[in-house]
Amino acid sequence: MHKPLAISMGEPAGIGPDLILSAYAGRAEWSLPPFCVFAHRGFMQARAERLGFGFQLLSTTPDEADAAFDRGLPVIDIEGMVPDHPGRISPLSGHAVIAAIEAAVTATLKGSCRGVVTGPIQKAALYNAGFRHPGHTEFLAALCARGAAPRRPVMMLAHGGLRTVPLTIHVPLRDVPRLITAETLAETLRVVHHDLRQRFGVAEPRIAVAGLNPHAGEAGSIGLEELDLIAPAIAQLVHDGLDIVGPLPADTLFYPPHWRTYDAVVAMYHDQALIPIKTVAFDEAVNVTLGLPIVRTSPDHGTALDLAGTGKASPKSFIAAIRMADEMTQGQDHA
Amino acid sequence: MHKPLAISMGEPAGIGPDLILSAYAGRAEWSLPPFCVFAHRGFMQARAERLGFGFQLLSTTPDEADAAFDRGLPVIDIEGMVPDHPGRISPLSGHAVIAAIEAAVTATLKGSCRGVVTGPIQKAALYNAGFRHPGHTEFLAALCARGAAPRRPVMMLAHGGLRTVPLTIHVPLRDVPRLITAETLAETLRVVHHDLRQRFGVAEPRIAVAGLNPHAGEAGSIGLEELDLIAPAIAQLVHDGLDIVGPLPADTLFYPPHWRTYDAVVAMYHDQALIPIKTVAFDEAVNVTLGLPIVRTSPDHGTALDLAGTGKASPKSFIAAIRMADEMTQGQDHA
Repeated sequence: MHKPLAISMGEPAGIGPDLILSAYAGRAEWSLPPFCVFAHRGFMQARAERLGFGFQLLSTTPDEADAAFDRGLPVIDIEGMVPDHPGRISPLSGHAVIAAIEAAVTATLKGSCRGVVTGPIQKAALYNAGFRHPGHTEFLAALCARGAAPRRPVMMLAHGGLRTVPLTIHVPLRDVPRLITAETLAETLRVVHHDLRQRFGVAEPRIAVAGLNPHAGEAGSIGLEELDLIAPAIAQLVHDGLDIVGPLPADTLFYPPHWRTYDAVVAMYHDQALIPIKTVAFDEAVNVTLGLPIVRTSPDHGTALDLAGTGKASPKSFIAAIRMADEMTQGQDHA
Repeated sequence: MHKPLAISMGEPAGIGPDLILSAYAGRAEWSLPPFCVFAHRGFMQARAERLGFGFQLLSTTPDEADAAFDRGLPVIDIEGMVPDHPGRISPLSGHAVIAAIEAAVTATLKGSCRGVVTGPIQKAALYNAGFRHPGHTEFLAALCARGAAPRRPVMMLAHGGLRTVPLTIHVPLRDVPRLITAETLAETLRVVHHDLRQRFGVAEPRIAVAGLNPHAGEAGSIGLEELDLIAPAIAQLVHDGLDIVGPLPADTLFYPPHWRTYDAVVAMYHDQALIPIKTVAFDEAVNVTLGLPIVRTSPDHGTALDLAGTGKASPKSFIAAIRMADEMTQGQDHA
């Protein structure tokens, strides 16, 4: 028996449910492994009919999903009120969205599923259901900590061998310099190194670190963070045996012959990490959360409310997220 | 008679002279227009022999360069002491490096040449010859101002239709937010708009502006510069009839189907503008200076001292710089 991947439905007013249904319809074409969807079954049925999909939705448990996968889309039913109103966020559905994520994570933590692929959520739609996390990723980290203090999750964007990690994420640019510390950089680099070995099968990870300033500060003439923080943090990790190179000028680092010599690039802020990957792989990049006890991937796009229910959303990133979660859990796929 | 392009030799210890010689040797293969080199002739001769080039170097004036171009490389001789020591910067050559730039600009300002392509310089090597400008570009702006207060030159990186302009350049990232003002943004956008029309033949330029913060600030939730400075500056210019769009999220702006809808993108800082263009066109991008009374292009790389004299430096960016200066001056090519 193969363990399935767990997929959480995400925001019902968005394109997440559409893409899950498209993925199931194209499972043979894209060679997708068995998966099960944590979702409100009646809502998923309505969305499938709206989009004209003819396959069956089967209520199963995670353990039954593999055997059922050829007959229909396995759905782990999540109770709640989930109207099928594409593009119109409803305060009714927040509880079911959260419960779907919780159930998918729980099933994976206890070993019934191999890893989690999350459909995109709309944070503001979840506030009245009690959601208080800065984002999806932090919510997953809290669930994985099961009541203990969660570890800092690390976001990675991946497309083929190009993997970029922003050290700071959704913060104003003016706050970036003071948020970069030798400690967070070292912690992030250790997580990236660990997960490249454990999740990506890279025996001896080689990681590049981008500088904060133009030309990586040019030996202090264009900013001091490289000399004061970044280089010393790298030197300590190199001393500990990790293969880490930098700080390197960010502008030339993402030329393919350059980044290909590294297994991942840790960048200092959002746009520095995301510009290169979205420039070359706009709708095919995958968001991977490192530092968790489970594998979690997600498409690198939002809920795209305006496209929900139309069948026009590109499933490329979602398909890539499923395939990457599959690859990252190849050792765990048999129950 | 065709007017030639003026090429300044740049740092003699670097690869600039090598690339000029390579460009002449490959002039037919690359369909290059006539050009003349402002350089110390004895030094150029020595470098040509070192690299094994068999063609002649001819002492000419700019007016004779077109007629001479098929017989040999036209050199406008610059006096001075210029040793041929690849990779070893000499304090002797600074005066000649500066004089070559001055002569090339002067010949172009008075109409003997169509435009200037500059070989890369090493600023530190010029200090003892009295060079006090922040960079090559500012020196050119000062020469063009002929004693008056120079206009602010605007740096553009270009490759094919992708043209990016960093609003701030070689400054520490922590200084970027306070250096961005509505005035400098508006001034830069006006120069870009003007030069796209005058230099690039774009009848109705459409310019995108990147946000400073992740997701262009997400309506103020990740930083306020978009609302406080960038959007109002754009609104004023749009009111004045310019076609300017933004601020847009920088991470998705450089995906080719997105940037192709704009004639140029103005970014807020160095890496935001340079990462996308160096990722896709590492050694073929051209540095263009806008806002000057003359056309000036240069390769988008430095002196690469370690490659000088070896014949191993890629001439792609230099060739592209010559071709771009040619295209930008098509209307002025007949004397």
